[in-house]
Amino acid sequence: MNKGRLEAFSDGVIAIIITIMVLEMKVPAGPENHDVGALHDLWAVFLSYALSYVYLGIYWNNHHHMLHATRQISGGVLWANLHLLFWLSLVPFVTGWMGESHFAPQPMAMYGAVMLMAAMAYWILLNSILRVEGPDSLLARAVGDDWKAKLSPLLYVVAIGAAFVKPAIAGALYLLVALIWVIPDRRIERVLADGHARAATESAKHQ
Amino acid sequence: MNKGRLEAFSDGVIAIIITIMVLEMKVPAGPENHDVGALHDLWAVFLSYALSYVYLGIYWNNHHHMLHATRQISGGVLWANLHLLFWLSLVPFVTGWMGESHFAPQPMAMYGAVMLMAAMAYWILLNSILRVEGPDSLLARAVGDDWKAKLSPLLYVVAIGAAFVKPAIAGALYLLVALIWVIPDRRIERVLADGHARAATESAKHQ
Amino acid sequence: MNKGRLEAFSDGVIAIIITIMVLEMKVPAGPENHDVGALHDLWAVFLSYALSYVYLGIYWNNHHHMLHATRQISGGVLWANLHLLFWLSLVPFVTGWMGESHFAPQPMAMYGAVMLMAAMAYWILLNSILRVEGPDSLLARAVGDDWKAKLSPLLYVVAIGAAFVKPAIAGALYLLVALIWVIPDRRIERVLADGHARAATESAKHQ
Amino acid sequence: MNKGRLEAFSDGVIAIIITIMVLEMKVPAGPENHDVGALHDLWAVFLSYALSYVYLGIYWNNHHHMLHATRQISGGVLWANLHLLFWLSLVPFVTGWMGESHFAPQPMAMYGAVMLMAAMAYWILLNSILRVEGPDSLLARAVGDDWKAKLSPLLYVVAIGAAFVKPAIAGALYLLVALIWVIPDRRIERVLADGHARAATESAKHQ
Repeated sequence: MNKGRLEAFSDGVIAIIITIMVLEMKVPAGPENHDVGALHDLWAVFLSYALSYVYLGIYWNNHHHMLHATRQISGGVLWANLHLLFWLSLVPFVTGWMGESHFAPQPMAMYGAVMLMAAMAYWILLNSILRVEGPDSLLARAVGDDWKAKLSPLLYVVAIGAAFVKPAIAGALYLLVALIWVIPDRRIERVLADGHARAATESAKHQ
Repeated sequence: MNKGRLEAFSDGVIAIIITIMVLEMKVPAGPENHDVGALHDLWAVFLSYALSYVYLGIYWNNHHHMLHATRQISGGVLWANLHLLFWLSLVPFVTGWMGESHFAPQPMAMYGAVMLMAAMAYWILLNSILRVEGPDSLLARAVGDDWKAKLSPLLYVVAIGAAFVKPAIAGALYLLVALIWVIPDRRIERVLADGHARAATESAKHQ
Repeated sequence: MNKGRLEAFSDGVIAIIITIMVLEMKVPAGPENHDVGALHDLWAVFLSYALSYVYLGIYWNNHHHMLHATRQISGGVLWANLHLLFWLSLVPFVTGWMGESHFAPQPMAMYGAVMLMAAMAYWILLNSILRVEGPDSLLARAVGDDWKAKLSPLLYVVAIGAAFVKPAIAGALYLLVALIWVIPDRRIERVLADGHARAATESAKHQ
Repeated sequence: MNKGRLEAFSDGVIAIIITIMVLEMKVPAGPENHDVGALHDLWAVFLSYALSYVYLGIYWNNHHHMLHATRQISGGVLWANLHLLFWLSLVPFVTGWMGESHFAPQPMAMYGAVMLMAAMAYWILLNSILRVEGPDSLLARAVGDDWKAKLSPLLYVVAIGAAFVKPAIAGALYLLVALIWVIPDRRIERVLADGHARAATESAKHQ
């Protein structure tokens, strides 16, 4: 089974999610809609959009890297991937709700819950690919001890609780997780580069 | 005629259908929109969305497998594929109606009707491909006696009738069909694997 | 310049146009929204949708065939293609207006106007490709005397006029054009097949 | 890292942005919605849509050319590309606002601001690619002194200021920038063609 169509489908879904999210930014209506003051109500929606855009960018980048290092796909991987896309598809809804409520406690907690489910779905997808690839695969070595993937769910859980006490803390934690991940995942790139280099060395030895 | 663009177009349409379906989940409006109670009205919409997401995932997976085992495409196949996508494109509408009416009889029946048409369109597509591929093709052997494809329309018809008596029965039947199909279609994978193995054996014999 | 990205982009835009068109079919609102009677107002929207779906399917199929027989792309072709997609992108708007007004004269005429512009844009695209390919190219021979492409704009013009007298005549003409085109364009396929056969014969002669 | 998925993802996002922009053209509602007079209010929305469509077409074309001349992609390039798509994703919002306010000062200025950010994001993307490709790369030579890319931001800044004095001046400037760019960027094509020709000559010399 080839991975090309899985990549194309995932790209399509993530591209659409990112783009329809902006539909939550409604054009100010009414006679005073040509006033910049009309934008005032939109700042929270804009901030929410920017945050979710970064999150979806991170997922796309990591998905890209993960599948680049993948050689085989199974039926289970297809479903694990659809499961991840399901939670990501709920991001526009929670983003819009968070923004329009001006960061009220419940929407803030709900945002964290969807992000937590997406993080767990990503972890399931990674492991279903590793089960096909085997423990000695390039990807298995590339992932190593994935401290980011272990820390993020913990921070989401803390943020969900904090949202009911002080929503700003939850917001700060979501920002923190985004920053942790925005630093591009050079591990897979590095191990891939090492793998290519080693393969070149070994093939040189045998000649 | 190459199948690549047919796959890409179908992936695009299914990706968009899946993603715009979530637009039916409207952000709670009004001053009390930061209340989790505001989500109460959304549970039926969410359940409907999750069910339809699984259905569209099944169609995507099976479409993926079917075209993987396909070598030739005709003009008739292009139209049969567009016909399938037409019925799938109505899924967001019936899903939203079913959810917003809290599973009322008529929307429940309408959901089954669209699913029945989609199932028949898939059967037409499969047969228009088989007509090009021939009875001895890999795909023809892979499909075999397709009991799932025979049972599903029957269950849809029963569900459409049951919706007017007790909508919950229709809902249970839709769930049952989804469960039957979620078990990935390993038949095509197996026959393909057998086909490759046999080809390898025969080419070995001739050397 | 390679044609792959042009095909992919066009597929994407047409896939999205087809799919967002269904968003015009709004879920019946209000307490009586679980009544099939609520669907009564939607029949015109549904009919409009089905007609436009067939039109977009025709455009996708013909676009597919045309580019399959194309070997070179220029900067002018990119813009001619974007011009075609511009008019196609207006189809959801006129479709929705036609349906929601229950086939009133002005929307019926406007539908024909957009279809006329799209047909002319397709003709411009074809000719900008032919200018690159040359008069002896496979595509030039495949197109031949394109009576469908010559008849359609004429029928659109008649329909636009007829819409103000009797909208049903315009509707019948739109249906007629769709039927003329739905018969797949086997000419390009045939000429391509002939071309391959002749090339095979000639290469056999030279051996 | 391969550039194919970057191209596909960018194509997807731009295709969706272009297509959802037309959703701002709302079907005229009410009993008089079958009147062409109902379209009167839409002319500004239509003009805004046509202008933004051309802008997005320019971005797609230039993005296409730029990546065609690119051989290597880094993690930084992925993020620079996402950054460009972020600003482009805001185009439907400012386009809708500009049109619905009938070209009021503030929306006109806001349109220029988003365009300015997109132009700067494109410049950052180009330079992050050039950093990977090196100063002697085909792309570096193809870009040369990019007077269009230097003039456009200047015109946007003037337009933003002019919008508050006389919005029509801002509109004329946006049109001017579009016209400057619509002339296809033949420089990259020419340098690529030269590069191929020179490579052919040199390989002929060495034989």
